Formats: sequence, structure tokens, C-alpha cells
Amino acid sequence: PANAAWYNPAALPMTLLSVQGAQERILRHLHVVDTEALPLEHCAARVLASDILSTDLPPFDNSSVDGFAVSTVDISTASSAAPSILRVVADIPAGGEANRALQRGEAARIMTGAPIPPGANAVIMIEDTDFQLRGPNPPLPTEVRALKAVKAGENIRTKGMDIESGRKVMFAGVRLRPQDLGLLAMLGVANVPVFRRPRVAMLSSGDELIPVDCPLAPGKIRDSNSYTLSALIAGVGCEVVGLGIAPDDFQVLQMLFERAVESQVDAIVSSAGVSVGAFDYVREIIEARGRLDFWRVNVRPGRPLAVGDFQGIPFIGLPGNPVSAFIGFELFVRPALGHLAGMESTARTRMPVTLAEAIESDGRESYLRAIVEERQGTHFARLTGHQGSGNLLSLVQANALLIIPAGVKSLAVGDQAEVWPL
Amino acid sequence: PANAAWYNPAALPMTLLSVQGAQERILRHLHVVDTEALPLEHCAARVLASDILSTDLPPFDNSSVDGFAVSTVDISTASSAAPSILRVVADIPAGGEANRALQRGEAARIMTGAPIPPGANAVIMIEDTDFQLRGPNPPLPTEVRALKAVKAGENIRTKGMDIESGRKVMFAGVRLRPQDLGLLAMLGVANVPVFRRPRVAMLSSGDELIPVDCPLAPGKIRDSNSYTLSALIAGVGCEVVGLGIAPDDFQVLQMLFERAVESQVDAIVSSAGVSVGAFDYVREIIEARGRLDFWRVNVRPGRPLAVGDFQGIPFIGLPGNPVSAFIGFELFVRPALGHLAGMESTARTRMPVTLAEAIESDGRESYLRAIVEERQGTHFARLTGHQGSGNLLSLVQANALLIIPAGVKSLAVGDQAEVWPL
Repeated sequence: PANAAWYNPAALPMTLLSVQGAQERILRHLHVVDTEALPLEHCAARVLASDILSTDLPPFDNSSVDGFAVSTVDISTASSAAPSILRVVADIPAGGEANRALQRGEAARIMTGAPIPPGANAVIMIEDTDFQLRGPNPPLPTEVRALKAVKAGENIRTKGMDIESGRKVMFAGVRLRPQDLGLLAMLGVANVPVFRRPRVAMLSSGDELIPVDCPLAPGKIRDSNSYTLSALIAGVGCEVVGLGIAPDDFQVLQMLFERAVESQVDAIVSSAGVSVGAFDYVREIIEARGRLDFWRVNVRPGRPLAVGDFQGIPFIGLPGNPVSAFIGFELFVRPALGHLAGMESTARTRMPVTLAEAIESDGRESYLRAIVEERQGTHFARLTGHQGSGNLLSLVQANALLIIPAGVKSLAVGDQAEVWPL
Repeated sequence: PANAAWYNPAALPMTLLSVQGAQERILRHLHVVDTEALPLEHCAARVLASDILSTDLPPFDNSSVDGFAVSTVDISTASSAAPSILRVVADIPAGGEANRALQRGEAARIMTGAPIPPGANAVIMIEDTDFQLRGPNPPLPTEVRALKAVKAGENIRTKGMDIESGRKVMFAGVRLRPQDLGLLAMLGVANVPVFRRPRVAMLSSGDELIPVDCPLAPGKIRDSNSYTLSALIAGVGCEVVGLGIAPDDFQVLQMLFERAVESQVDAIVSSAGVSVGAFDYVREIIEARGRLDFWRVNVRPGRPLAVGDFQGIPFIGLPGNPVSAFIGFELFVRPALGHLAGMESTARTRMPVTLAEAIESDGRESYLRAIVEERQGTHFARLTGHQGSGNLLSLVQANALLIIPAGVKSLAVGDQAEVWPL
């Protein structure tokens, strides 16, 4: 196009940043999305938007066993040789009510989870009595013999024992796991305050890219980053707005950026062609309606990262090499989208490993494709073949990314390191 | 009901099994579901049903840099003091074709990823020439000066370098991660052979249970396991058929089991009331149309596990205590559903930790709720308060399950152990 610029790449102003420095700068571009209330059954993997206060759990004193609710004074001398005999005056199933107060010499049959009746201060297990029948609708005996004494409070789960009322038990910013949904259910949180799912536009660009269902033509390769990055974006809990493959064409690219705006996305992620020049149209389009910075991050694999905004929408441009795009996503896009989505943290679990091979590095913070295997309790890490940034197979074969810190140039067999499990 | 049995629980035939023994027995009940072909964009987290053979990647010799394709003999003496001058006879952008063969003294401008023309055996980087302009549509020079010599093959990624054609690169049974989708795209697998998603019925039972959106009544607690277990089942890639909460009522339970059959589910998972007796109706219903075994597994937290089949559909009955149900799911239901879903393995990552507190155990294999924190490269584990099997908060506060092997009765501060990150 007439207005396309060409330039000397050595003259491209490019900020040199550490991984952490780049992560911090990106977060400044992003604002947390707004919130909504959602029925609990739709909240798996959603991000909690408010702290949650507890009610008493359990909500009432209840029995932890199947047995008989008693007053301990009535059976303080009981033994199998000299049982204490109690009159059975009530039957309290799980889910039943405990309305009848026990008098001296009385007991109530009680099932696990059922409420303790007034006048009782312990439960004697069915196994410690002469009445050992359970099951649906067994007959209620008129009396029962206690074959041992029990302590006050024995086999009773008291109200508020697990959690007392008014305590903060869950915090805004957590991503809800199955067990978290269970606790919300216990607390009666039927409609859960959560952050809205961010909408994220995904764009691959490059004249060399063809869709997966087209036959390969000379000079062409199939677009793989759309699939990898879309799945990664969805994995952070975002809705993906797929913009498809853009050729290196100013008009088409501009149209796609406009479409992202119309789609009311919260962020735009692109994977550009492999050459620096391929970013140029993107640069021109964005800078006409926003701003764009090029960063060189001190990381391996590392290529320029483009960060900016288009009409107020945050933009992150990843390199086109599949492995660089993947690791760029993990380092820079995951924390960014997590922040957008309201998450307190997207930090991955780091796992200690022992090196099974010597590793050379160039002093940059490095993320190497590795296989971790456990042998006799020790987790050994080795690399998965050649680490070229186009070699996606070595990433597919990896079950971890081995992290070599900045400043480290060589590690020996047996040295300790850390990985991110994949 | 008239046909309800009641019994002495001590007489209930119950097989004592190790964790591994129980896992192996459950797998015998299950058959892998059938397969389907699915468009690649819908295959995230699906299970691959066939091995995948590679084509050559990259599919053609291409440049790894922006530069000029050359024949090394033409610039073997080049230096910045005495450059070699080449005629530029072609311009090969990314996605372009390399039709024109180079003759002696000729070069072609070439972009990263573009095909190497016949007659060229190396690429000299733009930075090592006197022509350093890049960007969209920069002018093509008529000649270029090489400022250094390059080796044969330099800056060329050869066809098949990352993966040679015909090699098995992915295996049936893997659950597709984002990077796996990327590789399938590269290989042109537009329709992917995957296993069908298993359909799994989920049922909570107990007269004490009320739905999350009802006010608490005396003696009642809210059903939490439906939410936790449904999210766990979905997390293994299964479709959940929610049957809701069943009271301890023979007719209703029978009707729900029939509904599971009508819904053509591949498995039924239930969480029963907390007492042994609560399994009784389930037992009777299942044994009329199949079989049911009660197992006591040598694990903590551990309560009876019920395993069988109803009209040929595998059934697993978990205890009602929320923490027991969760850990029972992780130990027994996850591998079972994974097997049903065609997965090669559902083994969780085990991470080594150092104990920050002394731990007593009773000799059973134990899964304790723990918090793992990293301090100066060491991951320390401590327990999250009281480990009662109804105390879901201690599971919510945990970020790991600490595994105490069978036979171990005490561990000291500083001892090594393993966890499952949660």
C-alpha cells in the first residue's frame, strides 16, 4: 500500500526487558473485567469476584456414627459384664428432627449426620450396644443395653466445628475448583459472584500460512498457532473470538482489527509471521489508533514481543515460531489474561528436578523442552532433542519446561533445577 | 418398602483391598467407548483414538533468517574489506515460490520461512550484507554485497529436519493439549480421530440433603457432592447427566437408576448418605438387575466403596462425606472414567516435598490435605488443620494432597514425601 513504511530493523527502537519487567509492564495495560452472578452449576473454573463468609458448618450438632444418643451420666458404669439399660424413646434418621428431649434413663436411636436431641451429650456406637441392626427401616427396640461408658461429647460433631460463622473462607480472585464449588454449595451460595469471562480475539498473520484443511502448496505451511493459542486462551477461562488467518495485507489486517473492536473483545492476541518485517502492517494499523511498543525480552526462546493497544483494547503480538509463541504465551499472555479475568495469580506450580544430562545455556532465562521421569522417588529431567523454535514435536514430546535462570551458563548432571509440568 | 432388607453390618461381606488392587479391579468393569472424527477446532482436551504419522516438517527447505539465498562458492572469500558482489535476480517472500534457479554470481532476496531456490546452498543474513532494509515492500536492489563468507547449509532449515515423514509422532490415548493441536494442524489433520466423550450419570442420595437454593431446615444439610463430583467428572472429559438428589426411598432411587439407563450413560457415579445403611436401597436395586460388591480399601480417608453394574452399566458408589468422596473420586473414579474415555493414563504428577511438620499415620495409605510453600527453592508441606472427613474447608485451603505410603506410621520434620498438587 502507498502508506507502508520500510525501515532498517537495527534502527527499530526496542526496549530490552527482563521476563519479570515485561510481565509487570504488560499488566499496566490491563483492567479487570466486570462481574456477574451465575448459578453455581455453571461456575466450574470461573473466577470468584467477592470474598465468601462462612455460616456455621456443620449447621447443627450431629452424630458422627450410627448409634444411640445418650446422657453420659446414665451409662457411666456400663460394661459388657454389667450393661446399663436405657429406654429408647425416639428414632432420629439422617435428615430427621430432634424434637423430643431425653430424660434420665432415656436414649434415642440416631443415624450418622442426624441432629443430637436435647438432653443428650454423647452418642454410643451401635457396635457398643446389644442392638446392632442397621439398614432401611430396621425395627426400633424399646430398650437398649450400653456395653461401655462414653465420654461427654463422644461421637458428636458440634455446630461450627469445621467452620465458624462469619469467617472469610474463600477469597475474590480464586479460580473455582471442584472442591470450591462443593464448599459454596454447603454455604448455600446458589448464585455466585464471578468475573465475566474475557473475550479475546485471536489472529494469525503471514502470507505463508494456509488453513489446516487445505492441501499444502509450494512455499506454504499450515497455520498451527491459531489452534495452539486458541486452546491456551480458552484454558485461561477466556472466550476466543477467532479472526482467522490474515495475509500480509494492510487492508485485510485493518479490517480484522476493526472486527475485533466490533466484537467488543477485551484483548487482542496475534501471532505474526516469523520475520520482523511481518509486524510492520500491524504496527502501522495499531499506531494510527493507539500505540505499540516492541520489546526484546532477555529470554530464550525469545523474539520481539509487541505490546500496545488498539482503540483502547490491549494488544499482545507473539512471534510466529510455534515454540516461541507457546512460551511467549505462558510467560506473558497467561498472566495478562489471568489479570483481565480477575485472577489473583496464574503462577504455575514449579517442581524441583535433578538433571539427568549436562546443560549449556547462554545466560538468558531459558525455558527448555524436557521430559521428567521419576526413578526411585527422584524426578530426573532431560531435554527432548533439538530445541529449534520451529520444532513443535520437541514440545509435544515434552512433559515439562525446564527453567534455567538468568545468569546461569552451565549445569552438570545431578544439579538441581526447576520445571513447569506441562 | 415391603422388600427392604435389614441386616447386621458386621455380617456384610466386604472385601479388603489395597488402593492398587481396588483400582485394578474397577478397570475390569469398564470398556473403552467408541470413536468419532471431529474437526480439529473442537478437539481441545479430547482423547486421540489413533496413532498419528508425520509428514516431513518443515515441508520444504526454507530460510531461518531474512537475507539473501546464495551459493557459498560465490562468496567464499567475502569480507567487509573485500565484499563479494552478487546480482539479485529474485525476491522470495514468506509464502512465495522459488521457481528461478540461481546461476553463478546470482542471489535471491529471501524472507524467514521462504523456500530456498534451486542453485542456492546457504542464506546470508541481511545484517551481513550492505542491504539492510526490511519491512513491507522494500525496494529490491539490483545487486548486493556479501560482507562475509557463509558455510554450506547455513541458515537453512532442511525439509524433514524437525520430523521426518512416516514417523509416529502422537499416540492413541493421549489427551490433546494445546501444543498437540498445533502439531496436528501442522500435519494437516483437519478431522481428528478421537474417542467419544463418555456420558456419566451423577446421583447424590440421602434424606438429609437439600438443594443449594433451599433454606436450611432442621436436621438438613445442603448437597455439596453433586457440585464437586460433577465438576470432577467433567474435568476428566465426560458429559455429566445430573440425576439430582435422591431421598432414601426405594421407588425414587429405582426410577433414577432407570433414568440413567434411558439416558444411555456409560457409567453411574453416586455419592450415598454417610451411613452404611444408606447404601441398602441402592444395593437392592442394583442386585436385582446386576451385581454390587462392597469393598473396604486400606486407605485414609476410607469408607466402603461400592462397585458393580446395573443393567450392564458400570456403577461406582462413593461415600457421602465430602472429603472422602473427593479422595475416593481421585483414587478410583478418575482412573475408571479415564479408562472409559480411552486415556492411556490419568496418573497425576507427584511432586517431592520436605515436611515442615511431623506427621503421625496409622499405617494405611493416606491422603492428607496440605499446603505446599516454596522457600529458597525447597517445597515445604504442612497440613491444613483438622482432617475430619466432613471438613471440606481444609480441602479448599489445601493446594496439595500429601501421600503417606502404606506401612508408614510416623514422619519427622525434614523428611521427604510426595504430594499431588491440587
